[in-house]
Amino acid sequence: MSLSLNQWTTRQWSVAEAVDGCVRHGLEAIGLWREKVAEQGLAESVKLVRAAGLRVSSLCRGGFLTAGGLPGEQGRTAFARALEDNRRAIDEAAELAAGCLVMVVGGLPGVRPGEALPAEGFTRDLAGARERVAEALAELAPYAGERGVKLALEPLHPIYCPDRAVLSTLGQALELSLPYPEEQVGVVVDTFHVWWDPRLFEEIARAGRRIASYQVCDYLHPLPEDVLLGRGMMGDGVIGFPPITRAVLAAGYTGDIEVEIFNADIWAADPDEVVATMKSRYAEVVLPAS
Amino acid sequence: MSLSLNQWTTRQWSVAEAVDGCVRHGLEAIGLWREKVAEQGLAESVKLVRAAGLRVSSLCRGGFLTAGGLPGEQGRTAFARALEDNRRAIDEAAELAAGCLVMVVGGLPGVRPGEALPAEGFTRDLAGARERVAEALAELAPYAGERGVKLALEPLHPIYCPDRAVLSTLGQALELSLPYPEEQVGVVVDTFHVWWDPRLFEEIARAGRRIASYQVCDYLHPLPEDVLLGRGMMGDGVIGFPPITRAVLAAGYTGDIEVEIFNADIWAADPDEVVATMKSRYAEVVLPAS
Repeated sequence: MSLSLNQWTTRQWSVAEAVDGCVRHGLEAIGLWREKVAEQGLAESVKLVRAAGLRVSSLCRGGFLTAGGLPGEQGRTAFARALEDNRRAIDEAAELAAGCLVMVVGGLPGVRPGEALPAEGFTRDLAGARERVAEALAELAPYAGERGVKLALEPLHPIYCPDRAVLSTLGQALELSLPYPEEQVGVVVDTFHVWWDPRLFEEIARAGRRIASYQVCDYLHPLPEDVLLGRGMMGDGVIGFPPITRAVLAAGYTGDIEVEIFNADIWAADPDEVVATMKSRYAEVVLPAS
Repeated sequence: MSLSLNQWTTRQWSVAEAVDGCVRHGLEAIGLWREKVAEQGLAESVKLVRAAGLRVSSLCRGGFLTAGGLPGEQGRTAFARALEDNRRAIDEAAELAAGCLVMVVGGLPGVRPGEALPAEGFTRDLAGARERVAEALAELAPYAGERGVKLALEPLHPIYCPDRAVLSTLGQALELSLPYPEEQVGVVVDTFHVWWDPRLFEEIARAGRRIASYQVCDYLHPLPEDVLLGRGMMGDGVIGFPPITRAVLAAGYTGDIEVEIFNADIWAADPDEVVATMKSRYAEVVLPAS
């Protein structure tokens, strides 16, 4: 287990710069984003991480599978398109030998991430949207399995239920994963999303080796106006990390601990300083006292 | 079962005005707030609702029980003060013959509702804060029982976990209530707070007659900057009400359905228009098609 830089934390950096940054700061692993990999080129990205000897702890992200809940042809087209895009994401994860492909499953059909509700053309059928995710998973899990890629279902904080993920708790993610082999479908424990959950410790224990990724960042209070950016450096918010870290380790997790922060101030700061702070906070705040 | 106006929805109105408004619009029940009752006077408020023949579907609110989690003398004093204030709230609920006293249990010890995190003097011990709530309940439930008042534990949306309620799901509220007789401690189902919960329908069924109050309002998307005001008129947000209403009724709930909306635009509008809209939306959007 070691600290991994999710490259969205140092969003100014390209893949090449983030790989260099990891090496410079003595990190052994990196979490990559598809957009950044596309900018760098997939083959070049593979070459860079291999040459640097880094593990790719995760690739972010697949998902957005719920649009199939729209009626008729529109829904069928959206569903087919989402599956196709996710197959490409799985292929990329395989090329990069990523530890997992993080899946953000999508919100209510027709509600676009970060945008206001459309006047029409969306549905309030939350249960139906959740069924669409299960259906998509049935298509994608075998495809991932054949390529040696693990899909990591990420429950998002319930604030994001309308537009980003109808997957809202670790228990729900775990239930979705159970029909599939452990090496095909796992779950993400991201402290920002799950810290409030009264069933958290029970579900972490139940998840056991299904935990495909442990991501840490803090939950700011109050949240900024754009709630997507309410993630903070560990120690700047309300989360008590040690009990969560201890539970994840006790469940048998042996992967890297990734720091993924969406935060306007952190994105504006010098990435090298961000990584230095991340390292010290990780040691002071995230790890349980031994 | 009938529609009840929670008076915070028409916040401009005093108790006297809200009682008049209910009568004018043909409503049979009202949800009162302690602040408004104090302004009107408790005895006068009792007289007004009796003369109008209204049921008091709920009194809002008791709670804020977690400050006892602060260390030492500060914690002990805060805990004693919170208990004392809650006993007064119970007395008031008894006088008003309120259907229940709604309990908003409080956030992390030392974090004040709606305020930024203090530089020091708060705790991240969420599990401990939750234990303080259980301890306070053990003190208050018998006191309420002796006065014929039902405490209604309200799980709040996880966004409010830092500063308003460490009670975050219906299942968690139900577990807290189980050691006490049904007539002493129940739970609130407020659509805004629980609509996203993947276990919602299971927990509503399990709660059964423990459901002390069913409150409805919509969940706006995106939320406004002050997330406290993200509650909307039914039909203006993302919630699909009929399945939830159907489940609450199937669980055996026979009380009133209260509309409680915190929303700057609605507070600024003509209260009579708000009540008229509330009535039509209730019929169109909240009730399940028969």
